[in-house]
Amino acid sequence: MFAVTVRDHMMIAHSFHGETFGPAQRLHGATYVVDATFRRAALDADNIVLDIGRASEELHALLAELHYRNLDKEPGFEGVNTSTEALAQVVADRLVDRVRAGAFGEGAHELHSIAVTLHESHIASASYERPL
Amino acid sequence: MFAVTVRDHMMIAHSFHGETFGPAQRLHGATYVVDATFRRAALDADNIVLDIGRASEELHALLAELHYRNLDKEPGFEGVNTSTEALAQVVADRLVDRVRAGAFGEGAHELHSIAVTLHESHIASASYERPL
Amino acid sequence: MFAVTVRDHMMIAHSFHGETFGPAQRLHGATYVVDATFRRAALDADNIVLDIGRASEELHALLAELHYRNLDKEPGFEGVNTSTEALAQVVADRLVDRVRAGAFGEGAHELHSIAVTLHESHIASASYERPL
Amino acid sequence: MFAVTVRDHMMIAHSFHGETFGPAQRLHGATYVVDATFRRAALDADNIVLDIGRASEELHALLAELHYRNLDKEPGFEGVNTSTEALAQVVADRLVDRVRAGAFGEGAHELHSIAVTLHESHIASASYERPL
Amino acid sequence: MFAVTVRDHMMIAHSFHGETFGPAQRLHGATYVVDATFRRAALDADNIVLDIGRASEELHALLAELHYRNLDKEPGFEGVNTSTEALAQVVADRLVDRVRAGAFGEGAHELHSIAVTLHESHIASASYERPL
Amino acid sequence: MFAVTVRDHMMIAHSFHGETFGPAQRLHGATYVVDATFRRAALDADNIVLDIGRASEELHALLAELHYRNLDKEPGFEGVNTSTEALAQVVADRLVDRVRAGAFGEGAHELHSIAVTLHESHIASASYERPL
Repeated sequence: MFAVTVRDHMMIAHSFHGETFGPAQRLHGATYVVDATFRRAALDADNIVLDIGRASEELHALLAELHYRNLDKEPGFEGVNTSTEALAQVVADRLVDRVRAGAFGEGAHELHSIAVTLHESHIASASYERPL
Repeated sequence: MFAVTVRDHMMIAHSFHGETFGPAQRLHGATYVVDATFRRAALDADNIVLDIGRASEELHALLAELHYRNLDKEPGFEGVNTSTEALAQVVADRLVDRVRAGAFGEGAHELHSIAVTLHESHIASASYERPL
Repeated sequence: MFAVTVRDHMMIAHSFHGETFGPAQRLHGATYVVDATFRRAALDADNIVLDIGRASEELHALLAELHYRNLDKEPGFEGVNTSTEALAQVVADRLVDRVRAGAFGEGAHELHSIAVTLHESHIASASYERPL
Repeated sequence: MFAVTVRDHMMIAHSFHGETFGPAQRLHGATYVVDATFRRAALDADNIVLDIGRASEELHALLAELHYRNLDKEPGFEGVNTSTEALAQVVADRLVDRVRAGAFGEGAHELHSIAVTLHESHIASASYERPL
Repeated sequence: MFAVTVRDHMMIAHSFHGETFGPAQRLHGATYVVDATFRRAALDADNIVLDIGRASEELHALLAELHYRNLDKEPGFEGVNTSTEALAQVVADRLVDRVRAGAFGEGAHELHSIAVTLHESHIASASYERPL
Repeated sequence: MFAVTVRDHMMIAHSFHGETFGPAQRLHGATYVVDATFRRAALDADNIVLDIGRASEELHALLAELHYRNLDKEPGFEGVNTSTEALAQVVADRLVDRVRAGAFGEGAHELHSIAVTLHESHIASASYERPL
C-alpha cells in the first residue's frame, strides 16, 4: 500500500458544551496543523498516488473555508462540539467529496482511503480515517 | 476509525543483557518521549474519543511510576531487557488496565485499541499496538 | 553564556484590528506553543541555570491565566492587537515579574535575560527577548 | 503488533516526465528523510523486534547507493519517474532483499512487514508498506 | 528585541567543486526548509514586526526563483559552491533587497536585521544573519 | 555572521546531588539530542564555514566517549551535577579543544564561536555558547 501526505493548517475559535470539557467550555481557539494522507494500492501511469500539487491546493482551499473563523457561528457547526477528532472527520469527508467531484483528477478515483490528522499542540492530536 | 494521541515523557536508566546490545550492555539511560494513541470506531455523546485531559493525566501518572528510575532495580524488570519495544508494551498494557479499571470513564470501554510509541532519540523509536 | 528552555502551550481566541490583518480581523484562534529561555553567564552552586522544574511550573501557571480564553474580552487586552510578537512580550514580561518576586528562587536574580518564542503554526513563530 | 523505526537521509537530483509535474519536470533535487519501520508480531529472545544498530547500518548502506546521485543517470532509474512514493517502494524492496539475505540476523525472518516513509519537505511525505 | 519567523522550502540540484566535498562533488540535490527571521527593536502601530502574510508571500516568491532548478546552470551560480551557508546568504540578501524596494511596506524599513536558516536534513542546517 | 549546525545524540545514566533536584536525585538517565553550532564571520575558499562531514564525525566521536555510560562513574564527573547545561559546556569545550588540535582543518581556526544545545525531552533543552 502506498500513501502520500500533505500538510497545511487553520486557526479557529470555538467553545465546547458539557462538563467533560472543563475550562475548554469557554470561548478559546486552536491552530490545527493538518496532515491529509491519501492511500492507494498501486501507483498510476505517472508513478504517483495522486498529483501532490493538486492535493495541496485542494487541502488549502478546503481549510480556507474554516481558517480565521469562529466555528460556533459557522453554518453546520452551531451546537456541535467541534472537537479535534470531529474536525478531522469533517476535513476527511470534505476531501472525499472533492475526490468524487473529480477535483483530484480521474486517477484519484482509485484511492483506497483518506486519513486526516489534526495536531492541536505539541502534545495532542486526533485523526480520522475512512475508505473511499 | 477515530484516534486521539497524547504525548508525555520519562527519563530512565537501564542496561541490556546479551551480545546483540554491544556497548548498550553498560548501564546507560534514555529519555522516552511517549505517544499514547486511543482508537475508537465512533465518537461518544460529547463528540470525542475520550476525555483528552483525563487521558493526559493517566499517562502522566503511569509514566511517573518509571520516571527518574533505574529500571534494572525496579520490581518486575530485574533481568528483563527493557528495550524500547518492550517498554512500549508495558505502557500500553498498563493503560489498558487503567481503562478497564474505569479511570478513563465509562465511554472508554468502547475503545477499539491502544498504540504506544516511544521515541528514544531523533532517529529511533518503537511501538506496540493491541486491541482492548 | 548558558541557557535553559522549557516548553508549554496555550489555546486562545482573539481578533485583530486594522486592514493589514485581512481575514484575521475575524474572531479566530490559535494554539501557541511557548518556549521560554532563561540565560545566565555562570551556573549556580547546583551547576544549573535555574530549577528547571520550578521554571516549568511557573510558565505553566502563567500561561494558565490566558489558556482557554478569548483575549478580546480579557482585562488589559481590550482593543489591543494581541499579535504573536506582542504576546511573546506579555509572557516574557510576566516571567520577569515572577523572577523579581522570587518565584524562581534566589539564584534566579542573576539571570541575564529571558527570551520567549511563540510558535503559532508549523510555518510561523514570533519572539521577544529582554534583559533582566 | 510491535514496530521499530530508524531514520536516515539521502540527497539526490532527478527530474520528472509528464505534464502533471509542471516545474518539477526540470532537473531539481530533494533531501529525503527516510523512516524505515519493521513490524513483528512477537519479540525475539532478546526482547526486541530486531537489532536496531544493525537495522540503522543496513538502512545507511542502502541509502548510500543513492545518496549524492542524479537518479536520472542511475542504472534502473532511466526514464522512470522517481517520485517520493516510488522511491519509498525501492527502499522497502531493497530492505526486504537484505532481510532475506540474512543481513538483519536470523530472527529478522519473522518480520511481518516493512514500511518506508520518505519526507521530502516539512509539508509533504510519501510511504510504502509491504509484507515480508 | 522582537522577531518574526516564517518558513517555506525549495528543492534544487547542484554539485560542489573541491576535494573537501567528497561524494557531494557529484550532481545531487537538496530540499532546503527555509526559516526567514525578521528582527526589530519595537513593534509598529499595528503591534507587529511586519505583515506576516506579506513576509510569507515575499519569501515564497523569492524561493520560487530557485525552486525546482539545477543551480549549476543558474545565472550567477555557475562555478560557485552553492553550499547551504552560501545559499542562506543569497536568500537573506535578496530579502534585504526586497525590503529596501518597499515590498514589505513602509514600516519594514525599521527592521534591525534578517537571519535565514536553511535546514538541509534532520541533522544539518546553516544560517546567515545580517543587519539591514 | 554565518553558522553551521550538526545534530547527533548520546544516551547516558546519571543522578543529581541536592534537594533542588527532587526525584532526579535518583539514578536515572537521558537521551540528549545534541546540536553543535559553529559560527564564523566569513566563508572560506570553498564557500563554507567548515567541512560539515568532518564536523559531524568529530561530534560523533566526542559523544561516543559519553554514549551508553553512567556519568556518575566516569572520570571527571564523580560528585559533579551533570545537568543538561553543564554537559552542554563539556561538549562545547571538547569541541574547542578539537578545533585547536586541528581536527577540523586549518580554516576552522577562524571560527568565531561554538554553541551547543542539548535537548533532553520534547519540552526542555539547555545550551552553552563560547567564543573560540
